[in-house]
Amino acid sequence: MAERSTLSIDVMGGDNAPGMVIEGISIAAEWFTDVDFLLFGDEAQIAPLLRNHTELTSRCQIRHTDEVVSNDAKPGIALRSGRNSSMRLAINSVHNGEATGIVSAGNTGALMAMAKFVLKTLPGISRPAMASCFPTQTGSTVMLDLGANVNCDASNLVQFAVMGEVFARNVLHIESPSVGILNIGAEVLKGNEAVKQAAQILNESDLPIDFYGFVEGTDLGLGTVDVMVTDGFTGNVALKTAEGIAKMFGHYLKQSLTSSFMSKLGALLAISALNKFKDRFDPRHYNGAMFLGLNGICVKSHGGTDALGFAHAVKVAIELTTSGVNESIKADFAKIHDVTPTDKQSTSEDEDESS
Amino acid sequence: MAERSTLSIDVMGGDNAPGMVIEGISIAAEWFTDVDFLLFGDEAQIAPLLRNHTELTSRCQIRHTDEVVSNDAKPGIALRSGRNSSMRLAINSVHNGEATGIVSAGNTGALMAMAKFVLKTLPGISRPAMASCFPTQTGSTVMLDLGANVNCDASNLVQFAVMGEVFARNVLHIESPSVGILNIGAEVLKGNEAVKQAAQILNESDLPIDFYGFVEGTDLGLGTVDVMVTDGFTGNVALKTAEGIAKMFGHYLKQSLTSSFMSKLGALLAISALNKFKDRFDPRHYNGAMFLGLNGICVKSHGGTDALGFAHAVKVAIELTTSGVNESIKADFAKIHDVTPTDKQSTSEDEDESS
Repeated sequence: MAERSTLSIDVMGGDNAPGMVIEGISIAAEWFTDVDFLLFGDEAQIAPLLRNHTELTSRCQIRHTDEVVSNDAKPGIALRSGRNSSMRLAINSVHNGEATGIVSAGNTGALMAMAKFVLKTLPGISRPAMASCFPTQTGSTVMLDLGANVNCDASNLVQFAVMGEVFARNVLHIESPSVGILNIGAEVLKGNEAVKQAAQILNESDLPIDFYGFVEGTDLGLGTVDVMVTDGFTGNVALKTAEGIAKMFGHYLKQSLTSSFMSKLGALLAISALNKFKDRFDPRHYNGAMFLGLNGICVKSHGGTDALGFAHAVKVAIELTTSGVNESIKADFAKIHDVTPTDKQSTSEDEDESS
Repeated sequence: MAERSTLSIDVMGGDNAPGMVIEGISIAAEWFTDVDFLLFGDEAQIAPLLRNHTELTSRCQIRHTDEVVSNDAKPGIALRSGRNSSMRLAINSVHNGEATGIVSAGNTGALMAMAKFVLKTLPGISRPAMASCFPTQTGSTVMLDLGANVNCDASNLVQFAVMGEVFARNVLHIESPSVGILNIGAEVLKGNEAVKQAAQILNESDLPIDFYGFVEGTDLGLGTVDVMVTDGFTGNVALKTAEGIAKMFGHYLKQSLTSSFMSKLGALLAISALNKFKDRFDPRHYNGAMFLGLNGICVKSHGGTDALGFAHAVKVAIELTTSGVNESIKADFAKIHDVTPTDKQSTSEDEDESS
């Protein structure tokens, strides 16, 4: 019998928390029968919700707190004044070893700041990155960073490359994942200094990485590489552009297929195929962005998701735990230490809680 | 009767030049009966192609040259060694006043470098920007820069905002176009220094611009603003990400609709609606990126396009000419001079032809 593991949940984060969160845990609990949950939040709200899920109660422990990080709190403020928030206490429980990971649908900036402050980064990593998987024409691609680091130098990008590669190998089970750095068309100009230097480091290193070279925005949809590395500004824009285009496409497709009697009849006949098509791009299936590079598992769920989406974020946290991704990142960074200029590891100087 | 105007064409640029280019001109010539063409390229190849289009011959003048800028030539090299190329001579003809604009499907970097060197920028503009229109959920959005300027400061972004606004007003005939600056989710982090400063300048200025504030990647598909301003790196990635996602979507839609007998039958019934849907995203209809801010009209066609796509690029050049967009940009920049730190205007110090 597999060993049981424990996951901490910030029950109060998310647009429809705590109801949506409890429903989401209930779905994930069915998928993963060997995981228990620590629920951080308002007991008066959580307890009645759990009563609808008697199968869950034996696997959940409520840790009461009244405090919640608001969605519009700035990361620095949340860090200093949110010491007893459900988010912070949930992160603390990972640091204390009570849980292997934490999932929150709350304020992204606050989550990142708190997780970085409490958990610290893995040895050799100066900045954690936000990563997520995308559907592509050939399967899926991991992209990082998605918004945690606005300005990145070459050494950050190289670290993202290593972390992304380890993730693709250990969690997605791709034997030798290809890694590309996102750049603009070589025909126009050759990109900024950071991407050029990062590519040079990866080309010249003897890291066990299948470095593809530069890729362009088009390659995200095409699935040209397994891991796409970029700075947080560009990655965030690319991610959200893709979301917006997918929405636009869906909007016009629906409009077209309801525009006449014939098209409606056609859509009805093709309904099963169209539903499968829709399912493939269901953003709930891709919910759960990972903060890679932290000394502990931390997953951010989309704030506006529903129970199924939250369950997928929980799934991501569980897969990260069972795959031992952090151990592999540590091992690879022991090797990489020679090829990349080490800048200092993240500690409390980044966000000084007492300032 | 409207005055006739003349457009210069680099007939040798593009994957399927010169055949595709001549076919494209032939289509555009039917749309715009009051435009004549100067054709720059190899007469031995062009003359026989024109023989298939007798209606064109009276409206075309061939300017023979053997030299062509290759697709892989670096901009600086092309600038120095391509003085007699079809691309360069076509640009010269705009500078000389023989033509009002030039269209090329050739090497983008070389075209930008040559156009900037020969035509110079408009007063007050330090760097021209590459701009294009995108289909959105509500109509279309102009985005700039799309790759001409990898690193941009606040003053560049403000200049792009003014140029984009003038374009939307004069060419797209939007009465009071809204302008947004592309940024990442405010909840994560607040963006880089350039976007923050540019937003401040636009907020505090008394320019006659409807400044919306920050927008995100999602807003491109949603059509939240009429003009979206960004640096060339981010803009290029967003543009190509959108292209890739649209391709992926098309790929899976086709796969779904051909997956069973019922779905095929359904697709057949809905064929007219599906074709309209496909047409809406036909990249040929959006072909033709403008270099805004130059002292002359310069339009870049996609290198891999076909005759219809090239005709659309010619259409863009003609619309830019007839709308007097450059006069309006000049007028607005006379007003803006006070609000933005002027850095020096582009001259030959950027790409020194003789170096």
